[in-house]
Amino acid sequence: DDVLRIAGVPFESRLFTGTGKYPDHAVMNAALDASGTEMVTVAVRYMDLDGERSILQDLDLSRYRLLPNTAGAKTAEQAVRMARLAREATGTNWVKLEVIGDDKTLWPDTEATVAATRTLVDEDFVVLPYTSTDLVAAVRLEEAGAATVMPLASPIGSGQGLPDWASISRIVERITSVPVVVDAGIGVPSDASRAMELGADAVLVNTAIAKADDPVAMARAMRLGTEAGRLSYLAGRMPVSPYAVASSPTAGVPS
Amino acid sequence: DDVLRIAGVPFESRLFTGTGKYPDHAVMNAALDASGTEMVTVAVRYMDLDGERSILQDLDLSRYRLLPNTAGAKTAEQAVRMARLAREATGTNWVKLEVIGDDKTLWPDTEATVAATRTLVDEDFVVLPYTSTDLVAAVRLEEAGAATVMPLASPIGSGQGLPDWASISRIVERITSVPVVVDAGIGVPSDASRAMELGADAVLVNTAIAKADDPVAMARAMRLGTEAGRLSYLAGRMPVSPYAVASSPTAGVPS
Amino acid sequence: DDVLRIAGVPFESRLFTGTGKYPDHAVMNAALDASGTEMVTVAVRYMDLDGERSILQDLDLSRYRLLPNTAGAKTAEQAVRMARLAREATGTNWVKLEVIGDDKTLWPDTEATVAATRTLVDEDFVVLPYTSTDLVAAVRLEEAGAATVMPLASPIGSGQGLPDWASISRIVERITSVPVVVDAGIGVPSDASRAMELGADAVLVNTAIAKADDPVAMARAMRLGTEAGRLSYLAGRMPVSPYAVASSPTAGVPS
Amino acid sequence: DDVLRIAGVPFESRLFTGTGKYPDHAVMNAALDASGTEMVTVAVRYMDLDGERSILQDLDLSRYRLLPNTAGAKTAEQAVRMARLAREATGTNWVKLEVIGDDKTLWPDTEATVAATRTLVDEDFVVLPYTSTDLVAAVRLEEAGAATVMPLASPIGSGQGLPDWASISRIVERITSVPVVVDAGIGVPSDASRAMELGADAVLVNTAIAKADDPVAMARAMRLGTEAGRLSYLAGRMPVSPYAVASSPTAGVPS
Repeated sequence: DDVLRIAGVPFESRLFTGTGKYPDHAVMNAALDASGTEMVTVAVRYMDLDGERSILQDLDLSRYRLLPNTAGAKTAEQAVRMARLAREATGTNWVKLEVIGDDKTLWPDTEATVAATRTLVDEDFVVLPYTSTDLVAAVRLEEAGAATVMPLASPIGSGQGLPDWASISRIVERITSVPVVVDAGIGVPSDASRAMELGADAVLVNTAIAKADDPVAMARAMRLGTEAGRLSYLAGRMPVSPYAVASSPTAGVPS
Repeated sequence: DDVLRIAGVPFESRLFTGTGKYPDHAVMNAALDASGTEMVTVAVRYMDLDGERSILQDLDLSRYRLLPNTAGAKTAEQAVRMARLAREATGTNWVKLEVIGDDKTLWPDTEATVAATRTLVDEDFVVLPYTSTDLVAAVRLEEAGAATVMPLASPIGSGQGLPDWASISRIVERITSVPVVVDAGIGVPSDASRAMELGADAVLVNTAIAKADDPVAMARAMRLGTEAGRLSYLAGRMPVSPYAVASSPTAGVPS
Repeated sequence: DDVLRIAGVPFESRLFTGTGKYPDHAVMNAALDASGTEMVTVAVRYMDLDGERSILQDLDLSRYRLLPNTAGAKTAEQAVRMARLAREATGTNWVKLEVIGDDKTLWPDTEATVAATRTLVDEDFVVLPYTSTDLVAAVRLEEAGAATVMPLASPIGSGQGLPDWASISRIVERITSVPVVVDAGIGVPSDASRAMELGADAVLVNTAIAKADDPVAMARAMRLGTEAGRLSYLAGRMPVSPYAVASSPTAGVPS
Repeated sequence: DDVLRIAGVPFESRLFTGTGKYPDHAVMNAALDASGTEMVTVAVRYMDLDGERSILQDLDLSRYRLLPNTAGAKTAEQAVRMARLAREATGTNWVKLEVIGDDKTLWPDTEATVAATRTLVDEDFVVLPYTSTDLVAAVRLEEAGAATVMPLASPIGSGQGLPDWASISRIVERITSVPVVVDAGIGVPSDASRAMELGADAVLVNTAIAKADDPVAMARAMRLGTEAGRLSYLAGRMPVSPYAVASSPTAGVPS
């Protein structure tokens, strides 16, 4: 009954996953299974749309909603073109929009991302854009008709966690008409839990699972961390106190 | 098969819980059930050893190992006396040893705690001492025969989490002959998960569950967070990188 | 000889200051004097350009370079208009460009800021834009011809310091053709020092001085903190070690 | 007029320094001069009490109060013996007391340090003990007659700064009869400033100066950082706000 809806589609799992960097497709599939995920993102460039054996042939698309992503796009135009290719090839109008503005950090170009979002929304895509922690960029994406807003926790693949959790909190507080999904940088389950405790609606995790020593075990750990954080958010955390507060009565110590 | 042993006793759950601050005993019992805990600590002063209806009558001791604690003791002598009273009244020789050296912060008096540990170990108690993040005090407790070492994450009941995680890490790295249990200050599941990710063997949580808006839901969240952190520790986390690392190949962007 | 140059103009002080929120103009002037600042920003809306006694009459413009700012502008057009008004009224073509995209957080609208920068640079303004910690926005401002890039440390007037120092570091590393000035959110001298230690070229501080209990003393403290951080950056800090490293030989303890 | 007193002796500089790890004595002396320090600590084991050229011959003891330290002592007895040797050799009854309980982290053994403090105070020493961030250990040192309490910021020589600033704050708040000096782990001037902003009475810095690329410049940077932090503490910092607070009036934007 705690269901997340994106563009009207319900998700029981709030952990979205990727397909990059796994040792092989068998490990990937075992990890996806362990994660409980219901949506998996695949780079359009990975889809091998021309022929040969593609990742799409090894992914059970009856279990997972496919979310093509535009990784590698450096302009709005490239990203839009990738989204169209993906729709033609796979039939889905969902797209994880990435427009990268800096190669070293894979930082998003938010202005180009907003522009591409507008174009793709006009073409009836369901657009889930990757963005920075910039608050106003998040608002512009919401205004442009994005189906979610997906701020990074820290650079893609870095595993640094949420150093700028204050900015994530500001976005969660401000963006109320569509879900906020924390994407990129999550390294351990406590990061996923913290994002959810702050009120994020979901998280997207790829490298932290794929590059763990045991990806399948880590997939399950991320599932539990995400659920823990969501449940904690709903349960309402205790207040933080600057001082200690005794658990037990302080009177009546036997002398 | 991932079993924690304290003084030879196996625990499948790595979340220990308390009994203070709950709205009532019914909520407490529902929360204990949801937490999956196998060991519950009760303040000796709460046991109402003289008569009247005690918390012990409402606690299902066939499900949970009882861990009497010496909350309120300000000297080694008081703590030792409480432990003996608890053993006489309940039959258990396990004790969570607390000797408080400062009322406002409920900071442990580590020197007195070491002394009380020695005395109680000589009397065949299984001693689980609450201590600070001081590394050498942790070593002294291990040398004194403590069955675990239980450093605080932050002040009791404060919910501040693990600001001094570096000291917890040092203790985990140094204390290898007995389990390290992070006790006090955990406020949300991400705190529990982080403690376990650092390599702690278990966590003890009371206030964060009892004082949540919905203690039963939070108990389950803490269970998941603790399991997530443990699983992550065993799975071997990805390395942290100062820069971004692409999830997908960066060659072959359609032009 | 460690001189900062902005648009060719040399500054020996790397602490820029504001004029808002002071108890009165006498305190403000004493604080400006104590800060050692050489550039002072004044809101165009504060200039009272129509008549009446203005802050400009009480500011010794023979000592301080005037930096009009467009605080309050919510669109590129408003900001451009303010800059032109300020130039007509005061004769300076320098402007601290602010275009706010969110009222509650005073978060900059980076897309509009880049657009206004382009317009103003075309009109021969020296543009010092206030921006977020978004890396690509910083690059776009540099490309647009900004004379500095001025990322926020945390929200204006919040005194939260530099929670997202990693993003500031990324900007400092990436923006090399113009100075990086950390603007907004600095609360104490350690914040100013830290910004400079990270390699920022200067800091801008207003509220932390104006709203201190003793603004004049705090102005001096900020001056020292800024100098300390700059000097540390030039001196080359010691490496950080995960372990202890003895200061003294560990052999030869008398027995 | 803002004078620090330790055992009745006034200090205008709140930056104490060490003598270890410098490239040579000339650089050391230039750095001490630049630091403005009035008290310098020297390891008893460094004093070469038997003959040969000692560091003491190269240190201008007419400018700096000598503070012998017991670095290397692993028991209270060793430390007491070192203190007595130092008094015989140098005539000073001041001693920086260090009793190390763990070699890898150089963590203090607080119980042994308290015991050695008692012994040395009985013998009319002025005792400045190095301790951990453990609150009750700090209280015990104060009760034992220590002339200051000197908690570590992080491990000796690590340059990690003040990760556990909350514990330092608790000590500063609780120890009111003698000065609190933050010792060990300071890496950059912002660390020194932050310690002083929290209300510490002084800092002791060695490695961060000696192992900087330019020790003399860093010595001056540390001096400025320490002064900045002290001045900020006295000036009374602005309140921290969770939201932005405009510096300028938000009405009257020209339309």
